[in-house]
Amino acid sequence: MKVRKFAIADASFERSPGQDGEIFVANLIDQRHGAPITIGFGRYAPNQSLDETIIVDDVMVVLEGKLSVSSNAGTVTAGPGEIVHMPKGEQVTIRSHEQGAVTAYVTYPHWQEARG
Amino acid sequence: MKVRKFAIADASFERSPGQDGEIFVANLIDQRHGAPITIGFGRYAPNQSLDETIIVDDVMVVLEGKLSVSSNAGTVTAGPGEIVHMPKGEQVTIRSHEQGAVTAYVTYPHWQEARG
Repeated sequence: MKVRKFAIADASFERSPGQDGEIFVANLIDQRHGAPITIGFGRYAPNQSLDETIIVDDVMVVLEGKLSVSSNAGTVTAGPGEIVHMPKGEQVTIRSHEQGAVTAYVTYPHWQEARG
Repeated sequence: MKVRKFAIADASFERSPGQDGEIFVANLIDQRHGAPITIGFGRYAPNQSLDETIIVDDVMVVLEGKLSVSSNAGTVTAGPGEIVHMPKGEQVTIRSHEQGAVTAYVTYPHWQEARG
């Protein structure tokens, strides 16, 4: 594998599976590429909400906007330059606010494979 | 483990091991916490340079400033909101520019353990 750089212009967004909100994901590195991790960008329209059971360790870096993540530990809200770690096994609700959000994400292992 | 949010104010920076430049790292999640990945923030003073053999898959998200990463695939330069993936086994030179840089990083597995 090679060192590679990714910008959001490189991303091909598709609707995040398992939900019908305006939430989109774009894998840039995943099980097709031979690395052990998945890397991508996420895009949330304003005021969206997603309930999810986290099946792989998931790290989101908020690049634009704001996201709140509620779990049994309470609610955290992250803005630009902040990181949210969602450990495997957690049940979460992810909410975007009025300005929407853009994220970079890294998961271990590959989330698409774990969904089966 | 719990869902957690990290801001740069949560980070305790220390000099990046194996070099004496003004390059600092702060792990937020690592081998002490039970997750399979390491998460942290990096900070580069202006015009620093670091030669490194990548021993674990390493993802950097540039939050501020700019970094160039040279490898046998050439040189990529990343600014705010851009991602650089440095696969395990690559030999790289990471350079900051005149404005320095701040990054968020995720590695699999734990880089501190891999350094031994």
